[in-house]
Amino acid sequence: MNDRIREILSWYGSENPGVRTNLARMLNHGRLAGTGKLVILPVDQGFEHGPARSFAPNPAGYDPRYHFQLAIDAGCNAYAAPLGFLEAGAADFAGEIPLILKCNNHDILNDERDPISAVTAGVDDALRLGCVAVGFTIYPGSSERTEMYQQLRDLILEAKTAGLAVVVWSYPRGSALSKEGETAVDVVAYAAQIAAQLGADIIKVKLPSEKVELPEAQKVYQKYEIPISTLADRVKHVVQSSFNGRRIVIFSGGATSADEQVFTEARAIRDGGGFGSIMGRNSFQRKKEDAEKFLGTIMGIYEGSVK
Amino acid sequence: MNDRIREILSWYGSENPGVRTNLARMLNHGRLAGTGKLVILPVDQGFEHGPARSFAPNPAGYDPRYHFQLAIDAGCNAYAAPLGFLEAGAADFAGEIPLILKCNNHDILNDERDPISAVTAGVDDALRLGCVAVGFTIYPGSSERTEMYQQLRDLILEAKTAGLAVVVWSYPRGSALSKEGETAVDVVAYAAQIAAQLGADIIKVKLPSEKVELPEAQKVYQKYEIPISTLADRVKHVVQSSFNGRRIVIFSGGATSADEQVFTEARAIRDGGGFGSIMGRNSFQRKKEDAEKFLGTIMGIYEGSVK
Amino acid sequence: MNDRIREILSWYGSENPGVRTNLARMLNHGRLAGTGKLVILPVDQGFEHGPARSFAPNPAGYDPRYHFQLAIDAGCNAYAAPLGFLEAGAADFAGEIPLILKCNNHDILNDERDPISAVTAGVDDALRLGCVAVGFTIYPGSSERTEMYQQLRDLILEAKTAGLAVVVWSYPRGSALSKEGETAVDVVAYAAQIAAQLGADIIKVKLPSEKVELPEAQKVYQKYEIPISTLADRVKHVVQSSFNGRRIVIFSGGATSADEQVFTEARAIRDGGGFGSIMGRNSFQRKKEDAEKFLGTIMGIYEGSVK
Amino acid sequence: MNDRIREILSWYGSENPGVRTNLARMLNHGRLAGTGKLVILPVDQGFEHGPARSFAPNPAGYDPRYHFQLAIDAGCNAYAAPLGFLEAGAADFAGEIPLILKCNNHDILNDERDPISAVTAGVDDALRLGCVAVGFTIYPGSSERTEMYQQLRDLILEAKTAGLAVVVWSYPRGSALSKEGETAVDVVAYAAQIAAQLGADIIKVKLPSEKVELPEAQKVYQKYEIPISTLADRVKHVVQSSFNGRRIVIFSGGATSADEQVFTEARAIRDGGGFGSIMGRNSFQRKKEDAEKFLGTIMGIYEGSVK
Amino acid sequence: MNDRIREILSWYGSENPGVRTNLARMLNHGRLAGTGKLVILPVDQGFEHGPARSFAPNPAGYDPRYHFQLAIDAGCNAYAAPLGFLEAGAADFAGEIPLILKCNNHDILNDERDPISAVTAGVDDALRLGCVAVGFTIYPGSSERTEMYQQLRDLILEAKTAGLAVVVWSYPRGSALSKEGETAVDVVAYAAQIAAQLGADIIKVKLPSEKVELPEAQKVYQKYEIPISTLADRVKHVVQSSFNGRRIVIFSGGATSADEQVFTEARAIRDGGGFGSIMGRNSFQRKKEDAEKFLGTIMGIYEGSVK
Repeated sequence: MNDRIREILSWYGSENPGVRTNLARMLNHGRLAGTGKLVILPVDQGFEHGPARSFAPNPAGYDPRYHFQLAIDAGCNAYAAPLGFLEAGAADFAGEIPLILKCNNHDILNDERDPISAVTAGVDDALRLGCVAVGFTIYPGSSERTEMYQQLRDLILEAKTAGLAVVVWSYPRGSALSKEGETAVDVVAYAAQIAAQLGADIIKVKLPSEKVELPEAQKVYQKYEIPISTLADRVKHVVQSSFNGRRIVIFSGGATSADEQVFTEARAIRDGGGFGSIMGRNSFQRKKEDAEKFLGTIMGIYEGSVK
Repeated sequence: MNDRIREILSWYGSENPGVRTNLARMLNHGRLAGTGKLVILPVDQGFEHGPARSFAPNPAGYDPRYHFQLAIDAGCNAYAAPLGFLEAGAADFAGEIPLILKCNNHDILNDERDPISAVTAGVDDALRLGCVAVGFTIYPGSSERTEMYQQLRDLILEAKTAGLAVVVWSYPRGSALSKEGETAVDVVAYAAQIAAQLGADIIKVKLPSEKVELPEAQKVYQKYEIPISTLADRVKHVVQSSFNGRRIVIFSGGATSADEQVFTEARAIRDGGGFGSIMGRNSFQRKKEDAEKFLGTIMGIYEGSVK
Repeated sequence: MNDRIREILSWYGSENPGVRTNLARMLNHGRLAGTGKLVILPVDQGFEHGPARSFAPNPAGYDPRYHFQLAIDAGCNAYAAPLGFLEAGAADFAGEIPLILKCNNHDILNDERDPISAVTAGVDDALRLGCVAVGFTIYPGSSERTEMYQQLRDLILEAKTAGLAVVVWSYPRGSALSKEGETAVDVVAYAAQIAAQLGADIIKVKLPSEKVELPEAQKVYQKYEIPISTLADRVKHVVQSSFNGRRIVIFSGGATSADEQVFTEARAIRDGGGFGSIMGRNSFQRKKEDAEKFLGTIMGIYEGSVK
Repeated sequence: MNDRIREILSWYGSENPGVRTNLARMLNHGRLAGTGKLVILPVDQGFEHGPARSFAPNPAGYDPRYHFQLAIDAGCNAYAAPLGFLEAGAADFAGEIPLILKCNNHDILNDERDPISAVTAGVDDALRLGCVAVGFTIYPGSSERTEMYQQLRDLILEAKTAGLAVVVWSYPRGSALSKEGETAVDVVAYAAQIAAQLGADIIKVKLPSEKVELPEAQKVYQKYEIPISTLADRVKHVVQSSFNGRRIVIFSGGATSADEQVFTEARAIRDGGGFGSIMGRNSFQRKKEDAEKFLGTIMGIYEGSVK
Repeated sequence: MNDRIREILSWYGSENPGVRTNLARMLNHGRLAGTGKLVILPVDQGFEHGPARSFAPNPAGYDPRYHFQLAIDAGCNAYAAPLGFLEAGAADFAGEIPLILKCNNHDILNDERDPISAVTAGVDDALRLGCVAVGFTIYPGSSERTEMYQQLRDLILEAKTAGLAVVVWSYPRGSALSKEGETAVDVVAYAAQIAAQLGADIIKVKLPSEKVELPEAQKVYQKYEIPISTLADRVKHVVQSSFNGRRIVIFSGGATSADEQVFTEARAIRDGGGFGSIMGRNSFQRKKEDAEKFLGTIMGIYEGSVK
């Protein structure tokens, strides 16, 4: 356990040793072990977008074992997926990679304006599958958010009691927000704050744009001249909004993008003090050797071996 | 236990020995024992469509014992029915045929655009009746699907803990889908994926048509030239969408059809790598000797003795 | 225990000895003991229609003890009532008559188009009051039916576990049905099937009319020439729809009618293979000696001493 | 224990000794001890109407201890109030007066057409505060009544199991009733019947007017010439509708009225066979000595010392 | 334990020693220890209004440890915050300041007309974090209030059983009230009464304006000439409405105001018999030394050292 990891764990002083042990397992796994940075492979697109849209670009991904192996070979800190995908490999890859059980999911066969994900797994499942953490998505801005926060609160209590860490995907959506507002910097910072206040150990948000959505917030950003013009500025603001950097906050890559753009974003995350990336479609939708190289570059940026 | 069955069971490495034992009981029962193929007799039409529509064509079927005997005599792998039908025969036929308790049901005295089935039985019932599995229907595409997924999640957790296998009927329906879209190949593949991600051990879907329903999916089917022109192609795509064939997926026969068409479909299921059929109305709505012959031909197709 | 009762009990082979004992208690009580026929006195009208409409015609009925005594003196097989009415006499009449606790009730101070009854009692109450069974009303056709089926499913599981029999009042109602459709023969047969599939031990339906409500069903009734022209035909069809006669199905008398009509109906129930009557307002809304004579005639029809 | 109290307790033969003991505690307390009559002081107006409207007329009533002392000094049988008011005095007045914990409450800061009270306390609270009974309000006629009946059913089961008596305020309200219909004699009698059927030990209703609300009921009141022209007639009818007088039914005084009118009403309650009064605002909104005298007159009417 | 604290604790005679101990811990902590007055620091604005609006004015406040230290150094009686903020410091500051866990929270990414907060924490969390009390917000006037009261009732029962005190934020809001009505004196007094009746140990309300919102209340305020013209009068009325001063009622400061105005308000709270202040944004949105001085002046007003 190096000093940086000890420092990070010190922020989680109210968690029991079980939770801190599982946080350490992620922080000390893979190529970025001990750096305090994380690159996590999430594969819930099969549920969220359907199998063909997710796996046709790289059909090896239809097989659930593929993603375990990719996460292992690329040196990720952890692999996150819904119940079925984890069940289909947890026994074969037992102990090889920290697992995060995604406990709620949403499909788009009926895509509502104010979404709520279905609770599809829980702490009992995470324990029987040997996971280090549970994951849960909330949609701040949805009229269903109260229900989601309460489901998350129940999950958090049960998970922490069982010594599992909690990863929260905090994705603003819903009728109260404009489409662009979903990634507005004030909204993303607010979403990070909500997740932190709800008790998340690790927070996952989208990369914020320069837009400010809420008029009341806009006054404050102007009055106090909060720097938001560069992506690194905005990452820094989100990190600050996550308990002044005392909660691990990582950023999602979104849809497939040009590699250079992703690397530029990774540099901004690094420069803004972010803790890393959660990188799904950009990873598993290309051939395995390409994905390993691609993820290797990102990890290099985080560890400093790549500029 | 032959190698093929061992292989299939190996895909379920995260399940406890109880679940794997009950999967083996189905796979090793009846005429198709040991082939890795399944023909299951389901009789829930009395609840779903009413008694006369279900049993008037062959009035022997009003008697719940009839279906147990048919499943046994035809050499089916298992018999699936709602609580009442199983209660009315489970004692008389104890140990003669693996039983699947259908745990939710829907009637059409009030037929909603966005349906949800009522939970009508559970794991306690399945255990007291000596069942090997529970069955549950979800309607992806219904605005009520979140509730259904959560009911299924609760059932799955309880069933697997008790060593019961879980069979999921995944039937897209609801206001977000066109009528033809319910069997569109992208939608059926998506429904299979959802069931697999929710933790189903055995997945039952309808045979897919060539139609692609969702515009976002259509782009992918075209771009990657996913073969869907023959029924065998589409079955293969659905099997692939079920964890690359590592989950047992079987196909329902639907309403009564001409025998030759059903046999053609069975060949496509076989050629596409499907695991078999669940065959209700086509079986129990004809005389018993005809049904046995009819099911025998299908089994012959699956085992290779019939072309 | 005579052979007919043994035969009936043999249909309930999946029930535990407690449930079968309580079924036997009803079948072996009163004037019809041992015949396999049942006449049950139900008094829930005070709740369902209000006290004056229920008891003003025979004010002795305001007193809850009256109905116990009437059921005993008339030789009924059982007495069914809501919690309050049973509480007000169960101690005084302990052991004198099998009791059925009606566990849900509906009032008409607010009479919805799609009704659902309130759950007003449960298994714990039935046990402390010495009952042999619980009773529950479902309204197939109501948009609230899913909730009702699930409430019944919970009650059935708990009741059977405790050795209590379950009597289901299956009364089609709701916005999806025409008023006449509520007693249409296809709808009544469907309602009986639903109750049986849900696990009812005894099913109570209304006497069916010659009408066929559902177009899809109409095709079947015509194609297979299902006889429904006489009341006895229709009773036979409903009995057949109740697991081919392997579930006890009894018929309700409805509002007060001319005696001769009721007797004619009883003959049709007998000739169609029905198991008897549940006879409320026609019994308790006349003077006690008249009611005893009236019920005596009906019992005579069932036992064969009256033509 | 005198014969009248023994007689009353005999109506509650299905209740356990705990419940009967607590009923006896109320019947044998205060000035009316042993008469079979009850005058109960209820003070829930602070919650229902707000503090100023409740207590400004007699500011001593802002203090929760005041009402305990008033109930004691006036010789009431019991004192009923919400959780907060009981908590604020139960320790100081332990054992001095039987307490009824009002377990649901409604405020008028948002006054719906179809009201439902919030559940604000329960059996655990009643036990820790030394109460003899729990109280609960239902609003028959409200579209929310099903929920309220089910909440009451849960409370009743838990209360009776714990040996607590149950007092039900049955107040018809809601969109299905006219304003005058809320106190129509048929509606009040129906409300009393519903409470009794739900298992109430003591029923509290409003004094009924001569109006008949429901057309179907009107036919019966006319056909059977049910006497409802005097208040005593109507009280008698309500008592009859409460299991022919075998459930304790008491009447509420409503808003402040001229004393003479209240006394006239008390005489009608007495002459109609009612069991007493529950008298809130008329009591605590006047000075304590006046209230004691006022309540003394009412008690005198019930015990026969005042005409 | 001085006499004033003993006197205050005597009002809570129905609470168990655990609750009274925790009340004493707050009353005997900080600069106002033993005075019977309280100044509490609440920091839930991060959740309620977002991070930038809350902490940009004084960026030190992004760090959760800042508020613990501020509450300690300023000599507050207690510090109240949501789960995340307490988790992020409870271990570091264990035993240094009484903690109140705010158990429900609301954000404004979707700001409804009839709000309900999400339940975000509970008694188990409060116990594991070493808190002395739980806090909960209700919105009387919201159409969702019934649900909120019931959530609070569940929390209160569980908290008191575990020996935790309960602090209720009672903030009228919702479609049934005008914007000005939310702080109308009758509405604030009513809100205090509701919280007290629900079982709150400490009640937090907003400072009331001279407006009277409800017409029925207006009649009473006029008829009985209730003094409401000065703020001290109105505080006195609210204190009286809180069980005649036998429940601790404190007042919130609201948005940032000119210091002199806040001090004037504190004097009115003191003169009206209020128990103190809960002072969030006015404290943590200025530099720490300013905040300490500012809070010191308020405490001086309460303890009498400042006029």
